[in-house]
Amino acid sequence: MTDASAPTIRPGKGLDATIGVALLGMGTVGAEVYRLLNERADEFAARIGGPLEVRGVAVSDLSRPREGVDPELLTDDALSLVQREDIDLVIEVIGGIDYPRQVVNAALKAGKSVVTANKALIAAHSGELSEAAESTGADLFFEAAVAAAIPVVGPLLRSLAGDKIESVMGIVNGTTNYILDAMYERGASYDEMLAEATELGYAEADPSADVDGHDAASKAAILASLAFHSRVSSEDVHTEGIRNITTQDIEAARAAGCTIKLLALCDRVTQADGTPGVSARVYPALVPLSHPLASVSESYNAIFVEAESAGRLMFYGNGAGGGPTASAVLGDVVAVARNIIHGGRGPRESTYAALPIADFGDVVTRYHVDMLVEDRVGVLAEISNAFSKHNVSLKTVRQENKDDLGARLVVVTHSATEKDLEETVATLNELDAVREVHSVIRMEGK
Amino acid sequence: MTDASAPTIRPGKGLDATIGVALLGMGTVGAEVYRLLNERADEFAARIGGPLEVRGVAVSDLSRPREGVDPELLTDDALSLVQREDIDLVIEVIGGIDYPRQVVNAALKAGKSVVTANKALIAAHSGELSEAAESTGADLFFEAAVAAAIPVVGPLLRSLAGDKIESVMGIVNGTTNYILDAMYERGASYDEMLAEATELGYAEADPSADVDGHDAASKAAILASLAFHSRVSSEDVHTEGIRNITTQDIEAARAAGCTIKLLALCDRVTQADGTPGVSARVYPALVPLSHPLASVSESYNAIFVEAESAGRLMFYGNGAGGGPTASAVLGDVVAVARNIIHGGRGPRESTYAALPIADFGDVVTRYHVDMLVEDRVGVLAEISNAFSKHNVSLKTVRQENKDDLGARLVVVTHSATEKDLEETVATLNELDAVREVHSVIRMEGK
Repeated sequence: MTDASAPTIRPGKGLDATIGVALLGMGTVGAEVYRLLNERADEFAARIGGPLEVRGVAVSDLSRPREGVDPELLTDDALSLVQREDIDLVIEVIGGIDYPRQVVNAALKAGKSVVTANKALIAAHSGELSEAAESTGADLFFEAAVAAAIPVVGPLLRSLAGDKIESVMGIVNGTTNYILDAMYERGASYDEMLAEATELGYAEADPSADVDGHDAASKAAILASLAFHSRVSSEDVHTEGIRNITTQDIEAARAAGCTIKLLALCDRVTQADGTPGVSARVYPALVPLSHPLASVSESYNAIFVEAESAGRLMFYGNGAGGGPTASAVLGDVVAVARNIIHGGRGPRESTYAALPIADFGDVVTRYHVDMLVEDRVGVLAEISNAFSKHNVSLKTVRQENKDDLGARLVVVTHSATEKDLEETVATLNELDAVREVHSVIRMEGK
Repeated sequence: MTDASAPTIRPGKGLDATIGVALLGMGTVGAEVYRLLNERADEFAARIGGPLEVRGVAVSDLSRPREGVDPELLTDDALSLVQREDIDLVIEVIGGIDYPRQVVNAALKAGKSVVTANKALIAAHSGELSEAAESTGADLFFEAAVAAAIPVVGPLLRSLAGDKIESVMGIVNGTTNYILDAMYERGASYDEMLAEATELGYAEADPSADVDGHDAASKAAILASLAFHSRVSSEDVHTEGIRNITTQDIEAARAAGCTIKLLALCDRVTQADGTPGVSARVYPALVPLSHPLASVSESYNAIFVEAESAGRLMFYGNGAGGGPTASAVLGDVVAVARNIIHGGRGPRESTYAALPIADFGDVVTRYHVDMLVEDRVGVLAEISNAFSKHNVSLKTVRQENKDDLGARLVVVTHSATEKDLEETVATLNELDAVREVHSVIRMEGK
C-alpha cells in the first residue's frame, strides 16, 4: 500500500519563503508570544530558513486596546482567519474547549499547521484533531500543553521513541505543588496556603481546575497517550484533588519519611483478566524524601519517566507562566515552520498499541491508612484480620498516641489493588474497634 | 532564492516500505542495539510506518563469534556496506574518530541517513559531516553522543528552538561524578576512588579520557554548538580534569556549603572588545549544595539549562551504559526512519549566529583560593592588596587553622575574569607572606 503514503508527504514552500502566521488569543501567553515573534524575528528566520509574518491576531474583544499590535491585524473572527489563503501556521492560545476545537479543526482541515498550548483541548479531542491533521498532512504540535517549557512531549514523541516506557510520574501542576510544599515546609493549613497562592497569583479566583486535579488530569491523559501509544482522554483519568489533605496527613507523611505531592501517574497495568491495559490517574500521594520528585519545591514541575532501556529520567523546570509557556509554543512554531519551508511533517499521533483503559480497581499501589481505634487488647488483631481478609498485607503498623478518644494507628501496606483496599476500608468502617478511618493516602515512588 | 530549497526536500519511500539498516560496531552498545532492533521490531514498524531490516553488520574482527547474529550479515568492510543500494540508514557505534569519519562521510554523501553515538567524531568534525549531509539531504542524528538516554540534543535542537539559551551547565561524565561523589560522601582519596571506579567497570583501564575531562569536552563542544547556533569543536574547549582534587579541597568545599563536580559549561561571553563570544569549558568546580546539580550522585548525569523565556530547566538520568545509549540511538533511528518513509528531514546543523570562541582569559566566574600563609600581622592586608591590584574583589576570607607551617587562608572571590585571577595568583606567589597557593577552584551555580 505504498500509494497510501501520498497524502503524508507535503512539499516545502522553499527556502526564504515567508510563513504567514495567525495568532489566536492575546492573554498572558498570547501577548508574550506576539512580543517574542517580533523581538526574535531575525533568529527565527535564520533557524527556520524563512521569516515568520504575523498576518492576523484573533481576540474576543475588539474594543480592548492591544498595546504594540497593529490594529489592522486584529479580528474577532478566528474561524475565517485560520482559513485565509495567506495563513500557513496557526498558534492557538485561547483556552477553553468548544470554540478552539472548532477553529483548530477548521485550520487543520484547511491544511494549516497548528501549535497549541491548550491541554484541555488536546486531552479531550486529540483523536478528532489528529484525524483532521492527517487528512491534509498538516502538523499539530502541543509541547506547551504539558509542563510549559519543560520538554516532555518532544522527548516522549521522539527521544524515547525507540524505548519501552514503563511509567510516567509527574508533578504537573504548580499551584497545588506550591500549596503542598508550603504546608510541608511551614506546617500551615490547606486553607491558609490556598489563600496565599491566590494572593500571589498562583491560584485562580476559582481554584477548582488546580486543586481538584482537573488540570493535572488533562496532562496525565496526554502523557499516557504518548507514552503508551494508545488513546487516553481526560475522562479516562481517575482524578482526586488535594482539598482533603490536612496538617495531620502532612505530619504523618513526615513521620513516615515522606512528603505529599499531587501526582499524575501513567502506568502499564495487568487487568483482572491478565491482559495489559493502561492506567492514568491523578491523586495526592506520599513520596519518599529520597525520591527525586520529593525535592521539587514551590511551583516547579517535574516529570519522572522510567523506560526499559533508558532507566530513570527526570525533566524539571517551570511548568507554567507566560515566559515558559511562550518558550514551548515558539519551539513548536520553529519546528512546524521548518517543515513548512523544507517539506515533511513531525511525528503524528501514534495509537497503534491501542491499550484499553484499565479499571481503576485493578490498579496496584501501596497505601498509608490513618485510623482512630479503641485502645484495648485485641484491636490490632481485629484490624490486621480486616486487611488480610482482603489480601492486603501490612508493611508497617505504627501507634502514634493515645488519649481519651482512643489510639491513633497508622498502617502502611504492601502493594495491593484499589479494589482490595476499598473493600478493606469498608470492613474497617464496620468494626467496633475502629472509631474513624481518618485518611487513606497512596504511596508512590521508591 | 526559492530554488535553493530543491535539494533539501526528500520524498519518502512511502508507507510500509522496508528500511535497510547497516549497523557499524558490535561492542556493548552495538550488541544491545542489534538485540533491541529484533526484540522491538513490531513496535518500531508501527511507530515508523514500515519495518526496519538489518542488512549488514560491520565488525573489525570477523573471526570473533557474534551470538545471535546471522553470519551472512557480517562484514569487515564498513565503507562498502554503507554505500550499498539496499541500505537506507546507518547506525555508527564503532567509536574512534578517523575510521568512522571516513565511513560516515561516505554514507552521508551516498544519501544514507546516519545515527551515531560518537561524541568525539561529532565534536571534532560536525561541520564537515553536516556539509556531507546537506549535499544529499540525508539526516545526521546524534542524541546518544551527549549523556546517552537523557534527552538533551533533541530539547536543544527542537524544544528550545524558539528560546534564547543563556547557559548550559552539565555533569556529563559518570566516571568522574562517581569518583567525586564518593570522595565527598566517604572522605576517601582520589586514588582510592579511581581504583574502586575501575574495579566496578565505571572507569577504563586508561582513565584519561574521563578523568582529564576529554570526554566531557566533546560533549561541551556539542552542547555549545547547539545552544548558541555556532560551530564549537572539542579543541575550542578549555579542559581541566580532576586528578588534582584532594581531600583537602573536598573538605574546603564542604566548609563553604558546596560540593565539587566536574562541569561542562557553555556560556555567552562578552569579549574584551565588547563583542559577544561563546565559551565552552570543562573543569572541576564548587557547586552550592542548594543547586540542583549538587545532588546528582553516583554515576548519574544531569544537564542544567537557563533560557531567557523558559527559565531554569534540568534533565537528569543515566548518562552512559549499553541500555541508555541504545535507547538514545534507537530514538534517533525511529525519527530518521520516519523521515525516510514519510519524506522530509530533521533539523540540520544551525550555525548562523557564528559566534567566535571567546578567549579563556575573558571568561568570568568566582574562585575559591586556598593558601598557606605566614601567621603574622599585616599578612591579610598584603594578600587583599594582591587581589584588589588585579580588580578581583573578595567575598569571604576564612582562616582555617594555624600550625607550625603557618596559617591556612581560604578566599572566595566575587566574579572576575580568568586573566585577572591568573595575574593575581602570580602576584600571590611572589609574596613572601604566601608560602603556597594550594589550590584555585572555580565556583559555579547559584
